Amino acid sequence: MVNHTYRVTEIVGTSPESTDAAIRNAIQRASETIRHLDWYEVISQRGAIEGGEVAHFQVTMKVGFRLEEPA
Amino acid sequence: MVNHTYRVTEIVGTSPESTDAAIRNAIQRASETIRHLDWYEVISQRGAIEGGEVAHFQVTMKVGFRLEEPA
Amino acid sequence: MVNHTYRVTEIVGTSPESTDAAIRNAIQRASETIRHLDWYEVISQRGAIEGGEVAHFQVTMKVGFRLEEPA
Amino acid sequence: MVNHTYRVTEIVGTSPESTDAAIRNAIQRASETIRHLDWYEVISQRGAIEGGEVAHFQVTMKVGFRLEEPA
Amino acid sequence: MVNHTYRVTEIVGTSPESTDAAIRNAIQRASETIRHLDWYEVISQRGAIEGGEVAHFQVTMKVGFRLEEPA
Amino acid sequence: MVNHTYRVTEIVGTSPESTDAAIRNAIQRASETIRHLDWYEVISQRGAIEGGEVAHFQVTMKVGFRLEEPA
Amino acid sequence: MVNHTYRVTEIVGTSPESTDAAIRNAIQRASETIRHLDWYEVISQRGAIEGGEVAHFQVTMKVGFRLEEPA
Amino acid sequence: MVNHTYRVTEIVGTSPESTDAAIRNAIQRASETIRHLDWYEVISQRGAIEGGEVAHFQVTMKVGFRLEEPA
Amino acid sequence: MVNHTYRVTEIVGTSPESTDAAIRNAIQRASETIRHLDWYEVISQRGAIEGGEVAHFQVTMKVGFRLEEPA
Amino acid sequence: MVNHTYRVTEIVGTSPESTDAAIRNAIQRASETIRHLDWYEVISQRGAIEGGEVAHFQVTMKVGFRLEEPA
Amino acid sequence: MVNHTYRVTEIVGTSPESTDAAIRNAIQRASETIRHLDWYEVISQRGAIEGGEVAHFQVTMKVGFRLEEPA
Amino acid sequence: MVNHTYRVTEIVGTSPESTDAAIRNAIQRASETIRHLDWYEVISQRGAIEGGEVAHFQVTMKVGFRLEEPA
Repeated sequence: MVNHTYRVTEIVGTSPESTDAAIRNAIQRASETIRHLDWYEVISQRGAIEGGEVAHFQVTMKVGFRLEEPA
Repeated sequence: MVNHTYRVTEIVGTSPESTDAAIRNAIQRASETIRHLDWYEVISQRGAIEGGEVAHFQVTMKVGFRLEEPA
Repeated sequence: MVNHTYRVTEIVGTSPESTDAAIRNAIQRASETIRHLDWYEVISQRGAIEGGEVAHFQVTMKVGFRLEEPA
Repeated sequence: MVNHTYRVTEIVGTSPESTDAAIRNAIQRASETIRHLDWYEVISQRGAIEGGEVAHFQVTMKVGFRLEEPA
Repeated sequence: MVNHTYRVTEIVGTSPESTDAAIRNAIQRASETIRHLDWYEVISQRGAIEGGEVAHFQVTMKVGFRLEEPA
Repeated sequence: MVNHTYRVTEIVGTSPESTDAAIRNAIQRASETIRHLDWYEVISQRGAIEGGEVAHFQVTMKVGFRLEEPA
Repeated sequence: MVNHTYRVTEIVGTSPESTDAAIRNAIQRASETIRHLDWYEVISQRGAIEGGEVAHFQVTMKVGFRLEEPA
Repeated sequence: MVNHTYRVTEIVGTSPESTDAAIRNAIQRASETIRHLDWYEVISQRGAIEGGEVAHFQVTMKVGFRLEEPA
Repeated sequence: MVNHTYRVTEIVGTSPESTDAAIRNAIQRASETIRHLDWYEVISQRGAIEGGEVAHFQVTMKVGFRLEEPA
Repeated sequence: MVNHTYRVTEIVGTSPESTDAAIRNAIQRASETIRHLDWYEVISQRGAIEGGEVAHFQVTMKVGFRLEEPA
Repeated sequence: MVNHTYRVTEIVGTSPESTDAAIRNAIQRASETIRHLDWYEVISQRGAIEGGEVAHFQVTMKVGFRLEEPA
Repeated sequence: MVNHTYRVTEIVGTSPESTDAAIRNAIQRASETIRHLDWYEVISQRGAIEGGEVAHFQVTMKVGFRLEEPA
């Protein structure tokens, strides 16, 4: 059995609809370039306001992914 | 009038659907064994990722409940 | 070009429906008395429990707004 | 039923006598200009020292108050 | 000699009189159901305000107690 | 001798020149509408980047001011 | 598929030998009375000093365990 | 006019009577060996429990004092 | 309109001259390999001392940049 | 002399043996793809529990490395 | 019975061998000049990396010691 | 090769001119009585306001210095 190593990187997702959609958007975008995404952790939740309404939700997350073993 | 004392315990709720559902699931499960649940506070929000999608949302919460007065 | 100054104030929104609704409610109420609302940041998420169910979601937020230049 | 919104502001109370008196002093002073004060939370406790004795206790608090519904 | 293990639980004490009374009340109530209470640590200090006065002090504490060795 | 009470409010100053200028700009702007400003504390330092250069420095600060005694 | 709920409790392990032994001791002691222990997280590391040497290592941990589904 | 420099050191005061007495005791003891004590800041509040009662209050504080100008 | 995703990475800038120069140096170096740099946030400020003088200022920053939409 | 810039990335090492082995494993794995690794800082220590025993230690670390000067 | 006062000072221990050895080294060195060392608390764990290996472990600790009563 | 031990002490520098000057002033003053000063870390940045202007900048820092090996 191997001792896995993971990397953690920080991303910010946005959505005009909801906090959860901002999370999902960021995970999907990250999965296009990073393999083995394993977990996320919400770091902060902010948002932009326009005209007295929430214009978009912003969620800053750490995402962890397993590093492949070098051949 | 009595001086109420409360206990606080930490729980983690999960849901494949949404952050709020994870909160509601944990509260409902906790209420099956704890009486007088009074408030909760979100401590952290994490999640598991599978196949580049959120597999389930995890919300760690503190929940407070009033201790009954001893007879 | 001017050097803008912003003020940040703290508000708590509530909703029996969802975390996001609590955020939206607080922003809308704040926008009735504060002009130039520009961003928010979630500080904490709590909630009241009644009868083993979430009675309402509470979101504490900082909201930032631009100060108008004195004439 | 309405969805209440609260504002939170930060105050510092002082007293040469005790920590609790510094808390009470600040609440009383704040209540002269703010209606519907509902709760406080202690943020930090400091003090001034003169001649090797505590000259006065300083308690920094957040105080929350309910915003009235616009007519 | 044994290697002691301790458990830590979180309680909230209240008192209309003082911060220290809130601490003492919570310790006394906890000692009715927990043996070997050994220390406490204050986590946060809040309070309820009614009519512009402190209605009661609330102190959230962690309390530690030694687990008995299984026979 | 009176027991002074202070209020603390949060402001964000900006400057294209330097961190210290952002602090000074915010203090000067705040002093136009708030009397008895007494101290500040830096909460966070951010900035905007344009074309690979710092476009402006942003300093979020708490500023404290003494409340006047009611007559 | 069910939505699992977890509880988190805090324990302190001690050992005269090493930090890791303090962790292992606490996990083993906790597993005698708690089923389904799943993970731990180190909260703080302290120790007692006697005669200028480390007398014992103390590790405060959160341990999470899955709640069984009610029948 | 000179640019003052201060040093900050950390002390723990104890008292079987009250939190404030623990603060006062530590300040008085520190003033026996340190000149120009100027302020303190409470870092944490703990206590020892014996027989289900608070045995003594412990307050960890930072205390600041002005360094004298070298001759 | 698209839902932008941002990445955040951490860098440390240094300068023998000033804190602001350390910030500017790091931004300029990062902009050589990262496109669409949008903001930074200061995480910590340290420095090296040699011969009783500041040898260089070190500023640890998070920098955020927009991810390009995949074609 | 140049003004060095460093990057900081976050990794998680694991080991069934010890906390220190988890640190060493992660550093060695990271050094296979990153040059000029210079320091690490432990961010959190967690672990997985199986059968009432520590299954493996997990250490989350930031690792810093010097960026090469562009030619 | 007297009301003990303690001082807390911060030290950094290093070791090429292990985290625990870094703790032990610092305690032993501190005990050469400080009497009545009573406890320590780990504040941070860092380390230097050379050639892709941990060159030495660094543990920053607070150590507490009882002040002797003045005669 | 020896295992170095460092001590860390906290100082506050002030300057009417700039944040960096407050840092430099404190380092220079500390170096008059402490040998082997090696690094500093900024803990907080505050300031005094007089007449709506920054009267002086205050920077609280930790400074680390190597302990000499006992002969």
